[in-house]
Amino acid sequence: MKEVSIGILGAGNVGRGLIELIARDGEAIAARTGIRLKVAAVFDRSYQKKSEALAGVPASDDPSIVLSNPDVSIVVELLGGLSPAGDLIRSALSAGKAVVTANKALVSSPAGPELLKLAQDQNLNFGFEAAVAGAIPIIRTLRMHCVSGEVRSIRGILNGTCNYMITRMEEDGLDYDAALRLAQEKGFAEADPTFDVSGQDAAQKLAILAGIALDSYVPVDRLRVEGIESIRPVDLKIARRMGWVIRLLAIARRTDAGELLRVHPAMIQEDHILASVKEERNAVFVDSTSAGPSLLVGKGAGSHPTATAVLSDVIDLARGGEVRPALFQKTEPEARADFNYRFYVRVQTHDRPGVLAEIATVFADHDISIASFHQEEGPEPVQLVIVTHAALESAMFEAVAEMDRLRAVMLPSVVIRIEDL
Amino acid sequence: MKEVSIGILGAGNVGRGLIELIARDGEAIAARTGIRLKVAAVFDRSYQKKSEALAGVPASDDPSIVLSNPDVSIVVELLGGLSPAGDLIRSALSAGKAVVTANKALVSSPAGPELLKLAQDQNLNFGFEAAVAGAIPIIRTLRMHCVSGEVRSIRGILNGTCNYMITRMEEDGLDYDAALRLAQEKGFAEADPTFDVSGQDAAQKLAILAGIALDSYVPVDRLRVEGIESIRPVDLKIARRMGWVIRLLAIARRTDAGELLRVHPAMIQEDHILASVKEERNAVFVDSTSAGPSLLVGKGAGSHPTATAVLSDVIDLARGGEVRPALFQKTEPEARADFNYRFYVRVQTHDRPGVLAEIATVFADHDISIASFHQEEGPEPVQLVIVTHAALESAMFEAVAEMDRLRAVMLPSVVIRIEDL
Repeated sequence: MKEVSIGILGAGNVGRGLIELIARDGEAIAARTGIRLKVAAVFDRSYQKKSEALAGVPASDDPSIVLSNPDVSIVVELLGGLSPAGDLIRSALSAGKAVVTANKALVSSPAGPELLKLAQDQNLNFGFEAAVAGAIPIIRTLRMHCVSGEVRSIRGILNGTCNYMITRMEEDGLDYDAALRLAQEKGFAEADPTFDVSGQDAAQKLAILAGIALDSYVPVDRLRVEGIESIRPVDLKIARRMGWVIRLLAIARRTDAGELLRVHPAMIQEDHILASVKEERNAVFVDSTSAGPSLLVGKGAGSHPTATAVLSDVIDLARGGEVRPALFQKTEPEARADFNYRFYVRVQTHDRPGVLAEIATVFADHDISIASFHQEEGPEPVQLVIVTHAALESAMFEAVAEMDRLRAVMLPSVVIRIEDL
Repeated sequence: MKEVSIGILGAGNVGRGLIELIARDGEAIAARTGIRLKVAAVFDRSYQKKSEALAGVPASDDPSIVLSNPDVSIVVELLGGLSPAGDLIRSALSAGKAVVTANKALVSSPAGPELLKLAQDQNLNFGFEAAVAGAIPIIRTLRMHCVSGEVRSIRGILNGTCNYMITRMEEDGLDYDAALRLAQEKGFAEADPTFDVSGQDAAQKLAILAGIALDSYVPVDRLRVEGIESIRPVDLKIARRMGWVIRLLAIARRTDAGELLRVHPAMIQEDHILASVKEERNAVFVDSTSAGPSLLVGKGAGSHPTATAVLSDVIDLARGGEVRPALFQKTEPEARADFNYRFYVRVQTHDRPGVLAEIATVFADHDISIASFHQEEGPEPVQLVIVTHAALESAMFEAVAEMDRLRAVMLPSVVIRIEDL
């Protein structure tokens, strides 16, 4: 039986979940993996308030309890954020300790490729399965698909908060604010939800997944990111009538015109399996030349699901063996900025003659062809819904900007791409 | 860069797919994994007819070309079946070579636990990711979920042939024979489809998955297995009207009354994500205490998807590291034989007075309570559809046997369990 001691940086929810799992199931883990794990030390700024959860594990508010501990061979970083996590990981690697992290912000930042390179130079492994989509083994699966052949596309539902809110608007007809409040009550959304609803959280995760698929470092700021802030129940109702549902998708796709890298709400056919992904669940749909299309669905967050992903990396590193080459060491050419899509556009106007003609003229002026048009009955603002044929994003956004300056238009228009799957 | 030589037993579709992947992508594999793979030797009875696909790799119809080759450290067994695969793997392990196999029949047979034990005694790994559900990384995922906590249930769509046929009956209204012929034309079904449509193929796969989840050896003959042979388009049509779809499910579930281990067609709610799994796709829905509910969907068969799974095991073994303890070394107590279900029953009768009373009496005599009843319009045989409240399987099968002996009943009744998800 191999004995391996780990040190934990950060005793938040996931850190305490990990300590609990190892304390409760240590014997079973040893029997199933051949590895006896011991938590040798914990660094946490407020470790004194957490003594019960730490269950006798030596703890300190000085990180050297972990980093200078000669017994610790694997450091698990669960602090989150860029600092001090980056520096502490750098110290751990320099001290010859392998690293496991759940830190998506750090791995997707420029520090990510640097730390991965440092690990490789030290002949150490660096695991970050838990950084994306909790208990869904997407990092392992992508690496497996990438061993031979290549990933053609990734389409992920990577933010549980947004998917939960969309489900509540879609199934219960809640308005946006009520859906957000409910998500906050359930603990799925923060007091300040901006990071989730703006698409930034999904963007960090996509940068990591796309980085593996493209064998490169993909900076978050190279992704085009739109959130769900403008989506309303009426969009979901109209979508359903047309045979679609709306999901916030994180997309990386190889096209003949270059890499497409996007986070945005999208209309998808209601009979596609991604449309079945509801509530706070995460999902990743991957199409690769080696394995064909695959879908993985599961819990994207939570103390035990994330701790499970951390533990899977810990066991992998504890087994030892040849160190994997560092990911994210190449930098790809700029992703192309402009692609063709069919669009759903909801325009909110005064109820008066001539409005439709004005709007149709704007579309015509930008060479955008209208596939269908529909006016919802109801009070002002009148909701005009236009579905276009394929058009360039740049043309569409110019047309919408122009349209929103018309006197007849009362509120900003809502534009949703139609994603053909 | 670590160089690892493999030997392949069996140059069928998957074997040739693997040789092709390694020849085409060897450089990329080395760059991504740090392992340079070489196919050192191939054993195949008709190797002479396959010289083009073997692309210069030394081949022979004598397995010692692989087993006695001192360069070969990993043997990949792709012959299928119990013999000679079992003996050849035994020889490989005795010669100190790690083993990767895609052989579900062998791993689920009593030779499975024996070979896994032999591997452990030799301090060698034994990989069989490719034995279940092709490119879906279900073995890895289950092992990850089982490291701590336990798997509460597995529900798999594990036979592509059956799922394809059900989809064609459901979506195109094809009758059973036409759906089967189409599956044969598409290469999804064998000339003799018995192994697939009877549920035996799914049963072998379930035995492996349940074995990992229950940490034990689960003999295939302990599973209760029913196939799709009696399913007709009318069942799918009626199911849909009731908000259900039919899938052939392989189920392992821990219950208070013991382990439930079954392969059978089941009605599932049409809005459950498993209902979205169509065509020849495979899927596994796992609920574990550590990770919550998860779903994996993908290609369950095919040369490249299976070769991808084989390759993922080869890389894992080539990396080296601590050998995992052998699976399947415990034997579980007998799974319980009888469980409560709600049932869908389609009875095919003459069109004459009194039939319904006779049938209702049989149900009453067996204490089975009817939840709904429906008679399809149409010529003889009249189709009576009964949905029951929860009843014991034993009572239901006795009732149906008795009912099918009534003079009024023209053809065997169709019984489908309703699986509450």
